[in-house]
Amino acid sequence: MALLILGHPDIEKSLANKTIIEELENSGLDLEIRNLSKLYPDYNITAEAEQEALLKHQNIVFQYPLYWYNMPAILKHWFDVVFTYQFAYGSKGDKLKGKNFIPSFTVGAPESEYYTLGEHHFRIYEFCKNLEQTAYYTQMNYVEPFYFHGTSVNAGYTEEDVKVKARTQGKKLAEMLSRL
Amino acid sequence: MALLILGHPDIEKSLANKTIIEELENSGLDLEIRNLSKLYPDYNITAEAEQEALLKHQNIVFQYPLYWYNMPAILKHWFDVVFTYQFAYGSKGDKLKGKNFIPSFTVGAPESEYYTLGEHHFRIYEFCKNLEQTAYYTQMNYVEPFYFHGTSVNAGYTEEDVKVKARTQGKKLAEMLSRL
Repeated sequence: MALLILGHPDIEKSLANKTIIEELENSGLDLEIRNLSKLYPDYNITAEAEQEALLKHQNIVFQYPLYWYNMPAILKHWFDVVFTYQFAYGSKGDKLKGKNFIPSFTVGAPESEYYTLGEHHFRIYEFCKNLEQTAYYTQMNYVEPFYFHGTSVNAGYTEEDVKVKARTQGKKLAEMLSRL
Repeated sequence: MALLILGHPDIEKSLANKTIIEELENSGLDLEIRNLSKLYPDYNITAEAEQEALLKHQNIVFQYPLYWYNMPAILKHWFDVVFTYQFAYGSKGDKLKGKNFIPSFTVGAPESEYYTLGEHHFRIYEFCKNLEQTAYYTQMNYVEPFYFHGTSVNAGYTEEDVKVKARTQGKKLAEMLSRL
């Protein structure tokens, strides 16, 4: 049983993220998916509804495409609105304690560009410190991110390439969730 | 002359960010301020209007409070919508080339908590790689961020403490902008 917070602005037009979710849905896991952009097209995220969903689950998956080395705005807004004082942190803010914080994202460019002399200069984990520390500060267990490179069909990857990699990620994620 | 992109969700209720902006406004600089949350309360950011503003300026200041080790969602959305292919990057995407990318933010907790064994575990610069790489990828000049710690009145800082530090930051920023 897991909660999946989907931070894709338009999942219907997505290839990689959509395939990962289909794979998860086909895995037979008991999965609650919250598609933020569909639930909150005007960004008016309801803290109470989201916190209620969080309380029901032990495993929280964050699924999104990496945009500008970071999560999309709708997911950032979710953290800002939902991870409140005395819920997620503070003297009484232990409601997320011990839950698993599981990032799962997709990266447009190839891995070979994510190194010091490459076009993107940094390794992916260097862009994940904010996730890691958000987990620590809320007493959650940070799980090393699931991700793959090369989702951009414009960059020469075929649709089938992307689907194969996305299915693999979905499978790995489902396997881990079934063990947790 | 500078463009200031304000990423505070409610500047009227702000102390630190508001004071920095007041200081800048009093400095006599020719400053264009774009308050994103006021311009786009529903997050429907207009790429064209923002790109037009960018084209007019050499110095771009990003002013915001650090939320969850990162920029607020409204500013993240601005990057996602405005920094488009063939404008900000791509074979013809050199419209931002050579402009100065100047982060200016505020941090709630004290500096002493931002170290490996502290409550926030990382140094501030470790949370800025996404900014740095966004500047590199768009051929902008990354300027080391302006920021100060301790904006949280709840954490025991007085309003006057915060104002003094914010005025100092505003002054330093104005001095640098007048030299660029």
